[in-house]
Amino acid sequence: MKPAKLIAPGRTRLEDSFWTPYQKLVTEVVLPYQEKILNDEIPDAEKSHALANFRIAAGMEDGEFYGMVFQDSDVAKWLEAAAYSLAVHPDLELEKRVDAVIDIVAKAQQPDGYLDTYFTIKEPEHRWKDLLEGHELYCMGHMMEAAAAHYEATGKDTLLKVAERMADHICSVFGPEKRYGIPGHEEVETGLMRLYQVTGEKRYLEMASYFIDARGTRPEFFAEERRNRDFEVFGMDPDNLDYNQSFAPVREQKSAKGHSVRAVYLYRAMADVAAASGDESLYQACRNLWQDIVTKKMYVTGAIGASGELESFSVDYDLPPDRAYAETCAQVGLVFWARAMLNIEAKGEYADVMELCLYNSTISGMQADGKHFFYVNPLEVNPGLSGEVFGMRHVLPQRPGWYTCACCPPNLARMILSLGQCCWSENDDTVYSHLMIAQEANLKLAKIRTESGYPWEGRVRYTVSPKEKKEFCLAVHIPGYVKAEALSVKCAGSALPLQTAAGGGDTLPTHQAPAAENAANGDGTEENGGGTAAVLRDGYLYLKRSWQEGDVLELEFPMEVRRLYGTVRVRDTAGQTALMRGPVVYCFEGADNGPYLQALRLPRGAEITASQETEGVLKGAVSLQMSGLRESDSASLYSEEPPACSQVQLKAIPYYLWGNRGLNQMRVWIRE
Amino acid sequence: MKPAKLIAPGRTRLEDSFWTPYQKLVTEVVLPYQEKILNDEIPDAEKSHALANFRIAAGMEDGEFYGMVFQDSDVAKWLEAAAYSLAVHPDLELEKRVDAVIDIVAKAQQPDGYLDTYFTIKEPEHRWKDLLEGHELYCMGHMMEAAAAHYEATGKDTLLKVAERMADHICSVFGPEKRYGIPGHEEVETGLMRLYQVTGEKRYLEMASYFIDARGTRPEFFAEERRNRDFEVFGMDPDNLDYNQSFAPVREQKSAKGHSVRAVYLYRAMADVAAASGDESLYQACRNLWQDIVTKKMYVTGAIGASGELESFSVDYDLPPDRAYAETCAQVGLVFWARAMLNIEAKGEYADVMELCLYNSTISGMQADGKHFFYVNPLEVNPGLSGEVFGMRHVLPQRPGWYTCACCPPNLARMILSLGQCCWSENDDTVYSHLMIAQEANLKLAKIRTESGYPWEGRVRYTVSPKEKKEFCLAVHIPGYVKAEALSVKCAGSALPLQTAAGGGDTLPTHQAPAAENAANGDGTEENGGGTAAVLRDGYLYLKRSWQEGDVLELEFPMEVRRLYGTVRVRDTAGQTALMRGPVVYCFEGADNGPYLQALRLPRGAEITASQETEGVLKGAVSLQMSGLRESDSASLYSEEPPACSQVQLKAIPYYLWGNRGLNQMRVWIRE
Repeated sequence: MKPAKLIAPGRTRLEDSFWTPYQKLVTEVVLPYQEKILNDEIPDAEKSHALANFRIAAGMEDGEFYGMVFQDSDVAKWLEAAAYSLAVHPDLELEKRVDAVIDIVAKAQQPDGYLDTYFTIKEPEHRWKDLLEGHELYCMGHMMEAAAAHYEATGKDTLLKVAERMADHICSVFGPEKRYGIPGHEEVETGLMRLYQVTGEKRYLEMASYFIDARGTRPEFFAEERRNRDFEVFGMDPDNLDYNQSFAPVREQKSAKGHSVRAVYLYRAMADVAAASGDESLYQACRNLWQDIVTKKMYVTGAIGASGELESFSVDYDLPPDRAYAETCAQVGLVFWARAMLNIEAKGEYADVMELCLYNSTISGMQADGKHFFYVNPLEVNPGLSGEVFGMRHVLPQRPGWYTCACCPPNLARMILSLGQCCWSENDDTVYSHLMIAQEANLKLAKIRTESGYPWEGRVRYTVSPKEKKEFCLAVHIPGYVKAEALSVKCAGSALPLQTAAGGGDTLPTHQAPAAENAANGDGTEENGGGTAAVLRDGYLYLKRSWQEGDVLELEFPMEVRRLYGTVRVRDTAGQTALMRGPVVYCFEGADNGPYLQALRLPRGAEITASQETEGVLKGAVSLQMSGLRESDSASLYSEEPPACSQVQLKAIPYYLWGNRGLNQMRVWIRE
Repeated sequence: MKPAKLIAPGRTRLEDSFWTPYQKLVTEVVLPYQEKILNDEIPDAEKSHALANFRIAAGMEDGEFYGMVFQDSDVAKWLEAAAYSLAVHPDLELEKRVDAVIDIVAKAQQPDGYLDTYFTIKEPEHRWKDLLEGHELYCMGHMMEAAAAHYEATGKDTLLKVAERMADHICSVFGPEKRYGIPGHEEVETGLMRLYQVTGEKRYLEMASYFIDARGTRPEFFAEERRNRDFEVFGMDPDNLDYNQSFAPVREQKSAKGHSVRAVYLYRAMADVAAASGDESLYQACRNLWQDIVTKKMYVTGAIGASGELESFSVDYDLPPDRAYAETCAQVGLVFWARAMLNIEAKGEYADVMELCLYNSTISGMQADGKHFFYVNPLEVNPGLSGEVFGMRHVLPQRPGWYTCACCPPNLARMILSLGQCCWSENDDTVYSHLMIAQEANLKLAKIRTESGYPWEGRVRYTVSPKEKKEFCLAVHIPGYVKAEALSVKCAGSALPLQTAAGGGDTLPTHQAPAAENAANGDGTEENGGGTAAVLRDGYLYLKRSWQEGDVLELEFPMEVRRLYGTVRVRDTAGQTALMRGPVVYCFEGADNGPYLQALRLPRGAEITASQETEGVLKGAVSLQMSGLRESDSASLYSEEPPACSQVQLKAIPYYLWGNRGLNQMRVWIRE
């Protein structure tokens, strides 16, 4: 077994016409704004008080705790995102400010390693007494993630030391021989695994494993906890075991249930633990939950968590476009989970879902100005209904500003700034490229420059500079929608024939080049760079060779508009189609198509042309033009006359750009 | 101005193959069951305690009040329905039991006429202090309706005297020179109008007018009331003025808002007051609200009140079939309102909506066994979602038994037993037939025997026995879907030519035979029974003549299956069609059509055949058979392959019969 490792954040530098502007926006707009929020320097925004809480807990100033019980995590998420920013764009001024924040955080830590400003300031006697709602483990988990990122980005261990003391304290409190406990909101498991990845300390892996294994083994735990204490925070139902995935031991869970962000945070940590420990049954549990989600509970945009109630998964095949919750954070969590799964096994389906979320239902959470955000990412909005009527109150038709509960914006910020970590994984003999994003990557086996027209063009070039003279395999994710026969592969100037190999099973260790391709090279009958076959297996193109300085692997495939159809089990999409081109899902907006989008039809054979936008907020994006039908409006509510149809020109824009041109209707699914 | 009067309940005796079995079911099953409930004699049902409350208030036994604050109304509704039953099927045993209940009710009345067991037993000091939630006026209003019905049915004034004392007490408390007040739940206005209709006491009309006119003139009233008292019942929001239609004076209300049952109870009373007082502006307000509902807020089944939140109207064109509230009581209220409107003006649209509700969305509330009831009448149910997921919890996929809050079952009971009152209205020179229901009617101008194949056949015969030798007009509602050219009219054996006349405006007084037809008779140039033209105006066929004993008016029209289309403004019905035949709306059930009804399509040209069912719960009803398409199920959630289609036989059954064959999916709207 040879799982790949998450690459360090500083090892890639994106130079991508799609993503670099997003990174710039986050660095120049989102992070500074968030920093001001944390410092209560934005006059009209609701007070955050997050840094003040730390200063008060540190004894640096007087005052009361203010904010949500998990207010600390806002600081942790900002630190994590800022660390990624420092890794990508060194900035001495920012680094100083980060150091100053870390200094405050460190001072707020208690002598025994405990760090949570809510409980320290407000209810020290209730420490660890409210794992259901207290969010102590959640906040500390985020601080551990920040610490690992900060260490990797800057080499400084200031925050890392804080995180280790924190983790050591947790290890001293919880465990098989100690106190039983599981977090009400998963996150510490991931934090511990990040610490383990950075420090190699096995007890952090063991602690993460404990929290994962303990979940679901004492279903009465939260209810007992509630009975034994005299306070509560949110009034959560301790008997709702689905909500926090404690309804069964994780290995027995076959169905993704409950709060979708909690769920994917747990699943990501399970994958990380499975990778680190080689635990087959834990990986199989991840596979089961993955399959459940992607075959029954995922929107066509990659969004998950359909229910507007408790931000949770709904039942199988219940995917209402107009009442979706589809929280930005859930999709960010799904990206991180997919990344963790890819570090176990290079399966195209993981990379496909990761790509789908990245280009659609994560970044749809942010306005093009970087100052307005959606928690909820519906696939249909209807002004007058969305955000206003029962069952749709949560579906806002326009992105509001920063939220009091600021989870999604910083989550997007850290995802976008750490995107390089989603692009690659590597082990001793293989480099995996998961995403076609233009960049310079400095990996262990090679430096690789990627040029890419993605997501608008199906053309990518990898220029390889091997670090030593050694045969290794470059494995490139080929998106699931690319047909093998339409894929052209050139290496070092020569066209390569494609072999296809059967995909692996659902077992853990497969980070190996496929047999067929090994054989082709192994027996020495074929020359490198000449007739060597590239092998396509399970969504990855494997090419093993002795790479020469400047060798170029070039891939091309046609970028056609595709119509997607939902299974008839999903009630809401019957008779409708959704358009995709490459990884990008399209939508129809009122701004382009007039009122009553439900009156539009796109006949099955209609030709669809793609063209690049040259102006405004859509600039650079490819939009779709097509001829369709519009059913006429009628005065009466019901009529025996079928509505008359007229030919109209329709335009679809990338889904992630919706809502950038004022209040209007939006639909992903259009009637055929 | 010559408004027609509501006919007394004993004047008709239904002999209808459709409705008589319903009346029998109500008399033999629903009323006795409800009586047992009121007496707490059903072992497994939740305790009602409703009659016990009256006995306790009367000092006949000791105990505490139990039940909802409006528990008294259960007794009133039973008394009203029992009175109609006595009018239709005299039953000495039942009459004795009714007398016994009235005796208890009378004893519970306070010396000053006040009657409300909740306040009398529990909080006498809070009488009239909680009009928002207290339901005193609501309960007394129902008792007044019961009293009027009982008096009309039996000639006894025992309950009427109670109701008059009650009304007199109310008159002594509220009014322009007295205390300001409006009921939080409208109903007393109707009760007062029924008392006025029976007794002719003008102060009851004035009191009803007061409550109607006072509404919306002091928007702060309920909030002030809340501030000035130290208790509350349900925690209703006193500032939600839409909920109880107090957001504006009624004459200024253009949009039906809030709790739909409250709304239609108010509108009915407004129509009754407009008819009695000749108040044009009040009738115009009714017209405005009627138009708002029927053009923007009514389901194809006639159901209203789409929102699952607070049982209320939603915004314009928001008519989700799968999340409908569409409370049975709201449709019953709409029937009564339509009846009141018809007593002002014989407009086909009123009778059409009344008929639509009667044959569809009212009786859909009752299982064929008379023992299970729906509050909510969805146009689509999906087991696994309906009743289970967020936004659909209120949509039960099967009818449960009797409810603790038993509003809908007794409301259906009184509607069904008093149906004769919906069939006719009359004034000095015209008899209006609003519904094609077979019966013997003993009206002032004539006895009329109606034979009818309705709703399954378009054939009706009126055999007239005039009471005196006098020319009068028989006006028969011709359903809106009947095309004038397809209508055959015979009178006294001769075919009559049809004239059409323009409909009247939106003004109050039009209970007159149309001019064209008056002229045809008036100038004496045409023989009665011979060449006299029947005049079709505004949905009514007018035939004025000197009716001879045994004269038969015979109408025939084809009963074709119609496809209905919703306006494109309603998102949920776009691309779909609903089937009707006569007044009956059809639906597709899983029992006949297999799983995934959303996978079915009914191509536009497909032939539909109708046939009468001969067995089981559908026996006697006409079902529809047609050839359609089924899209195939697919394993994957999304696919580039459009779903394959295969030819299938489809069957639709009358909507009112849905849910009688076990748990299964149901849809009214089917994709074209």
